[in-house]
Amino acid sequence: MAKQDNTLLLGADPTTGGDGPNSHAHNSVHQKRTVDGEKQMINQSIANDFDMKNQNFDFSSIPCFRIATFGCSVGPNIFISLQSIIEAVESKYQLSSCESPEFQVIFNDYIDDFNTLFRSLPTSREYLVAGVPGSSHGRLFPNSTLHFVYSSSALHWLSKVPEEVMDKSSPAWNKGTIYCTGTSKHVNDAYLGQFERDVESFLNARAQELVMGGLMCLVISGIPNGAKFSESALGKVYDLLGFCLEDMAARGLISGEKLDSFNLPLYYPTSGKFLEVIKKNKHLSMVRFAILKHPLEYFVPSDQMIAGGLRAAIEGVIKNHFGDQIDIDELFSLYLKKLPESRPSIVDDNNRRNMDICIFLNHNGV
Amino acid sequence: MAKQDNTLLLGADPTTGGDGPNSHAHNSVHQKRTVDGEKQMINQSIANDFDMKNQNFDFSSIPCFRIATFGCSVGPNIFISLQSIIEAVESKYQLSSCESPEFQVIFNDYIDDFNTLFRSLPTSREYLVAGVPGSSHGRLFPNSTLHFVYSSSALHWLSKVPEEVMDKSSPAWNKGTIYCTGTSKHVNDAYLGQFERDVESFLNARAQELVMGGLMCLVISGIPNGAKFSESALGKVYDLLGFCLEDMAARGLISGEKLDSFNLPLYYPTSGKFLEVIKKNKHLSMVRFAILKHPLEYFVPSDQMIAGGLRAAIEGVIKNHFGDQIDIDELFSLYLKKLPESRPSIVDDNNRRNMDICIFLNHNGV
Repeated sequence: MAKQDNTLLLGADPTTGGDGPNSHAHNSVHQKRTVDGEKQMINQSIANDFDMKNQNFDFSSIPCFRIATFGCSVGPNIFISLQSIIEAVESKYQLSSCESPEFQVIFNDYIDDFNTLFRSLPTSREYLVAGVPGSSHGRLFPNSTLHFVYSSSALHWLSKVPEEVMDKSSPAWNKGTIYCTGTSKHVNDAYLGQFERDVESFLNARAQELVMGGLMCLVISGIPNGAKFSESALGKVYDLLGFCLEDMAARGLISGEKLDSFNLPLYYPTSGKFLEVIKKNKHLSMVRFAILKHPLEYFVPSDQMIAGGLRAAIEGVIKNHFGDQIDIDELFSLYLKKLPESRPSIVDDNNRRNMDICIFLNHNGV
Repeated sequence: MAKQDNTLLLGADPTTGGDGPNSHAHNSVHQKRTVDGEKQMINQSIANDFDMKNQNFDFSSIPCFRIATFGCSVGPNIFISLQSIIEAVESKYQLSSCESPEFQVIFNDYIDDFNTLFRSLPTSREYLVAGVPGSSHGRLFPNSTLHFVYSSSALHWLSKVPEEVMDKSSPAWNKGTIYCTGTSKHVNDAYLGQFERDVESFLNARAQELVMGGLMCLVISGIPNGAKFSESALGKVYDLLGFCLEDMAARGLISGEKLDSFNLPLYYPTSGKFLEVIKKNKHLSMVRFAILKHPLEYFVPSDQMIAGGLRAAIEGVIKNHFGDQIDIDELFSLYLKKLPESRPSIVDDNNRRNMDICIFLNHNGV
């Protein structure tokens, strides 16, 4: 049940591409993530929830088993998860006395760093690969061509910042904070609404692409029911980023107005809300669910790892908003300087209110 | 029958990626290539050679028609060709009173510039896309999943320089020239041998990936039967590059030994030899063949276009061999300086011995 990865810890997305020192790839290789919890879930779900000869689709005779991974990130962890999936499917075929098909893994991300991804592919892999660019909130694959869908640490990225939080005339105007801390009901509702719409469009697109009887594994960082995100360790990590930006605005290094209009397109749901959203979908039925402990539960990251993981995750978003106005190196140097003060509240047991929610869905044929 | 494109003119491959001034993308957008000849061939072949309900495969009921393009290049021309293919297939479905399927286009190239490719995708496209990295001389796609294979200006790129031409003890040692001029039988045999092996491995891999009854369109730059490549316009273009490298070696700017071991992994076959190689394949039957006029037949490029196209095509190969030792800017500045002297022999009618060979193959079900 251990995932020691400072990128996952921050629910990072490789908006900082390439493989430089500030890249996602670089910031996720330090610790080989031990994915026991997830692997166990994958094994159980493929063994028990995956009916190879169901009434809607016969998996036993397909020449190629297609796995699509969404928001795949550039880094080694995805390849470990993929290997788990492939081995579990192969076991299933063996147990069913069916010849194992070829495997094709198709990587989707909306960011354009496929070059780094393709360069980082394991050379000893025994599967064919492809990359599909584009937003996972719309159709990306032909109808009924995917057999397994995998998405880890991606669904908390919203397709956009909800409009209300940028609207000065709205009660949800999010002045003074850069994300959804969970303290304002209006802001939370706006973020939650966007999250619901995004998950819904993701699931609807996938329901068309997944064959009937196909499985979907979703892993997302979240918080316990009733908790506020700002009370969690990740919340504190983002809070500190907000303080640093305020500091830079106070010193005239970035414009205050620009800061007021800056909001992170991120939402970390409670497990209850996430399940509610999932259950609304008519095509996909939840067949398995678990809360995996968050890395912070058993892993204490260094300051460098916290700042590095954060930078890998959101440098792109910051650059997109502030443009050339902001000196990113200065921002993260300030972050590192201020981090020791916030550190106790980040690694404090009382604040480790983050967890990975892992669910499996089955295309029910509707 | 017009292709006005200084990249195609040089049979270029986007070994210079990105979209900078020396990139393939930049060097192929100046003239919108008019692909009348190729389009006409595509229309004829899909109308007449493509049997939608053949004994081996029923195209009429597939939900998705998959087109794979090999050595796709980054640039606008590929999208024009793809549009022609899709429109012709759609017409075929309409004429057969079948509902048109979805289309998916899958781009392959061995170079890693998928980011530029994905950024350059037409926004108004009506097809799904994917990218597959890797050498087209091996398997890249699942068995029997492609319905149309397209490769233009790619097969003349060899998987490697034939070993004999780099072996000082071989009669095929290619001292004093950087490619296959066609004047030495030993060198020509070595290059032709590599070309044959490469085309064979390309066709064998594709034969596995193409559904039975599926079509393949191959376009390759070549020379007339009996001609020597050094007598062609393209031959002169490469000759001049060799002279420039010799000049730099004479001035100590690059090592003479390094130059001796430099050979371009390029082979431009005669149409006869190309057909011979193609006919050896047992799975694919030639159903249509034409010689398309080469752009030089009706288009006189500027010096800048010749040098720019050449650079876009082979900068990567030169960098790979000479490393930091060579100043590429200086090389091409020298090229431009020397070009006016060679220009008459390049654009002279007597030297325009290049042509595009266009063939269509059908997977015969064997």
